[in-house]
Amino acid sequence: MEPGPPGGSRPAERGPCLSSPPGADEAASASPLSAARAEPGRRPPAVAAVLPAGGSGERMGVPTPKQFCPVLERPLISYTLRALERVCWIKDIVVAVTGENIEAMNSIIQKYQHKRISVVEAGVTRHRSIFNGLKALAEDQPDSKLCKPEVVIIHDAVRPFVEEDVLLKVVIAAKEHGCSDYDLEFGTECLQLALKYCHTKAKLVEGSPDLWKVTYKRDLYAAESIIKERISQEICVVMDSKEGEEHIGRLLEEVLKSELNHVKVTSGALCHAGGDLQQIILEQCYNFVCVNVMTSDFQETHKLLTILEESNLSILYPVVVVSVHFFDVKLVPLSQKMENLMWIRGFAKEVRKRNILLYGLLICYPQDEQKLQESLRQAAIIIAALIKERNSGIVGQLLVA
Amino acid sequence: MEPGPPGGSRPAERGPCLSSPPGADEAASASPLSAARAEPGRRPPAVAAVLPAGGSGERMGVPTPKQFCPVLERPLISYTLRALERVCWIKDIVVAVTGENIEAMNSIIQKYQHKRISVVEAGVTRHRSIFNGLKALAEDQPDSKLCKPEVVIIHDAVRPFVEEDVLLKVVIAAKEHGCSDYDLEFGTECLQLALKYCHTKAKLVEGSPDLWKVTYKRDLYAAESIIKERISQEICVVMDSKEGEEHIGRLLEEVLKSELNHVKVTSGALCHAGGDLQQIILEQCYNFVCVNVMTSDFQETHKLLTILEESNLSILYPVVVVSVHFFDVKLVPLSQKMENLMWIRGFAKEVRKRNILLYGLLICYPQDEQKLQESLRQAAIIIAALIKERNSGIVGQLLVA
Repeated sequence: MEPGPPGGSRPAERGPCLSSPPGADEAASASPLSAARAEPGRRPPAVAAVLPAGGSGERMGVPTPKQFCPVLERPLISYTLRALERVCWIKDIVVAVTGENIEAMNSIIQKYQHKRISVVEAGVTRHRSIFNGLKALAEDQPDSKLCKPEVVIIHDAVRPFVEEDVLLKVVIAAKEHGCSDYDLEFGTECLQLALKYCHTKAKLVEGSPDLWKVTYKRDLYAAESIIKERISQEICVVMDSKEGEEHIGRLLEEVLKSELNHVKVTSGALCHAGGDLQQIILEQCYNFVCVNVMTSDFQETHKLLTILEESNLSILYPVVVVSVHFFDVKLVPLSQKMENLMWIRGFAKEVRKRNILLYGLLICYPQDEQKLQESLRQAAIIIAALIKERNSGIVGQLLVA
Repeated sequence: MEPGPPGGSRPAERGPCLSSPPGADEAASASPLSAARAEPGRRPPAVAAVLPAGGSGERMGVPTPKQFCPVLERPLISYTLRALERVCWIKDIVVAVTGENIEAMNSIIQKYQHKRISVVEAGVTRHRSIFNGLKALAEDQPDSKLCKPEVVIIHDAVRPFVEEDVLLKVVIAAKEHGCSDYDLEFGTECLQLALKYCHTKAKLVEGSPDLWKVTYKRDLYAAESIIKERISQEICVVMDSKEGEEHIGRLLEEVLKSELNHVKVTSGALCHAGGDLQQIILEQCYNFVCVNVMTSDFQETHKLLTILEESNLSILYPVVVVSVHFFDVKLVPLSQKMENLMWIRGFAKEVRKRNILLYGLLICYPQDEQKLQESLRQAAIIIAALIKERNSGIVGQLLVA
């Protein structure tokens, strides 16, 4: 358990607390952007972040400290690191973990390819962990490769949903404000630390509701659902530009658009070496519906999986690929089609290792227009369910719409 | 939005607040049980509950007021009603909803078969809603069928996880304690209401971490996950007592036991008119794995579904039924077996209307002992995934292990 007042009685919606190291008290700026980007002729402020992550997570009711608890199989702290890391003006991120967790922390940094992260040993209290983090950033460390920052953001390792705008507000406040009694009374213990030991200004900045702290087991559930929702906002229908395939691919795309509100449905072609597909992957779409028509096997799906594997998209989040196949019961018996496609199971097992969740979907393609629409609607419901749940227990299954 | 301090700054883990109507201030009892059960020669205290549920749920960020938001397709308030209703010593439960929601509230009571519930119109504030609830319970209402209670528990409609022991503590405290300054300062607004208008004693009672209030959308996610977890604690393997079926059923039961930790695996026979199965249903098991061996169709599953439908088990929670079928690839081609079983889709669609989620599972049954174990382990993973997610989008699918 961390020292200080219990998390339950703290305002859950308030943002990270901050401190500025001695000497950081430069001229204030009223323009939000100028805090991150320099005014002409002035250098941008150097910003770093310290994450105290030495807690034992007693309130969680699980043996693993909460910052290391898996959310979609990835430790919670990795989400928080990613949230800070994608803010380009945070130059260094220092994480303070207990001695026994340093090795695990380094593995997390390596596995999830985090950048600009340094690991220091946590102290016996949260305050001492923050102090150790600040010390690592101080100029007088002879062998330090870290830049001495003007502003240091102190951010809980268990608040994974921090956004750039809140961080920016913190940085601006750090350069602008003194501390009032109000801040002291309702703020958290770091504010008091900053005031007492750093002889510097401090200010409480309001955060967003998303900035809440993962404290109890139910918060882990909520975090997992929020993350699942965030990565399920876009579906890309992938098809080759062959005539038959494109036609039926477009039909499916239209039904997905009309059936799945709140989801952006795009499409990408596998030709041109997957140029537009690369762009979709770059923009972080985590859900793909791959149309296989002309071939009786997984030719298109295979191409897509190769592109996905090369892209490293699935390092941070599980990527869903639904391999779609069509059949006309009048031409080929369903059972024969299913038999042909059973090797999707071995295939799914293989890509599962690289965090890709592959499912098969056979869509009945009757000549009757109305029946076809019903088939496609059923397919849309199944696709939505697969994407929403990201259920790794049923990968490699061949579903039928 | 409800009046009073914002939910975020209130201690989230504190229990319901309470008030006692005038005249309820009888001799205190130190024994927990004696508050609910009378001491010899004394009558048990009459307890009622008032649920203010007139809030608009602005903070949730969804158009539906939070108490009516669906959790596993059932409105949140129904879970709270159920939590109070199963406490036999709460004689009446009064819900205060806005005029426009009275009809919806009555439908909820009817659909989920709630008992001992009265609906009153909410006031413009939370305090007035509580007052309206108390008024309905007062003796001087000429046409009231409600008993005049000695203690009234006032409980938020959006705290669905309240347990009997906390409610009992509240009742005991209501009869025992006066109110201190501490309670006033850190309590919620109802405490103050009780003090100001009822000229009665009031006391803040500590709740459990599960008693938190559903305020934000993330809390709905958490509530859904907690409920899913709670109803996934037990799996019943259902089999007929025919020799072949029982043997393979027992094998599957053993693998489920060893693979799924933290889950209680029981078994029930379909013979004897399902006597032991009735007991398992009565004890609220929501997950069934039904073994079909000797028959090539759904004979056993059909029997089970009939029993489940007659039991009303699925009124409150979705019930998962996995219809398990075995095949030996050497004897029957997989495709033929699948073709035989494809009518599970229509079947699933039918029982889905009665909140039963039916899935098919074909388990490969090779002669090789080691391969059989691998098959059964794979089946256990799929069964666990189906039960954990309760994904209604993929009901009627035939999965293969």
